[in-house]
Amino acid sequence: METVTLTVKGMSCAHCVQAVEGSLGKLDGVQQVEVHLGAGKVEVQFDAERVSLQQLAETIEDQGYDVA
Amino acid sequence: METVTLTVKGMSCAHCVQAVEGSLGKLDGVQQVEVHLGAGKVEVQFDAERVSLQQLAETIEDQGYDVA
Repeated sequence: METVTLTVKGMSCAHCVQAVEGSLGKLDGVQQVEVHLGAGKVEVQFDAERVSLQQLAETIEDQGYDVA
Repeated sequence: METVTLTVKGMSCAHCVQAVEGSLGKLDGVQQVEVHLGAGKVEVQFDAERVSLQQLAETIEDQGYDVA
């Protein structure tokens, strides 16, 4: 299990938190997601053998946010 | 039919627009809703005999936004 903290731009409200947490949480291999709205950070605990960092980033971008 | 423009604080993204438009749109007597995100304004066309201005404001506040 690995943990990564991504910098995400554009998250501005509780709905954004739900959109990011919900979409990442549905991915196979994602164990835990924590969104820090004020800091613009998303912390993800995941199994690198089942899901890649790129898939995490793409999932966030698909929701309309920019991953730095 | 009357039209009112409300000043609403806290709307910051497309999800907020959906939350406000969707909840107002469900009210009996509301004809049309337009959210101006940048300006923080919500324009509502409504039948004052079927829904009150106070109900409009309360509906927006129930979604988590402040009506000035």
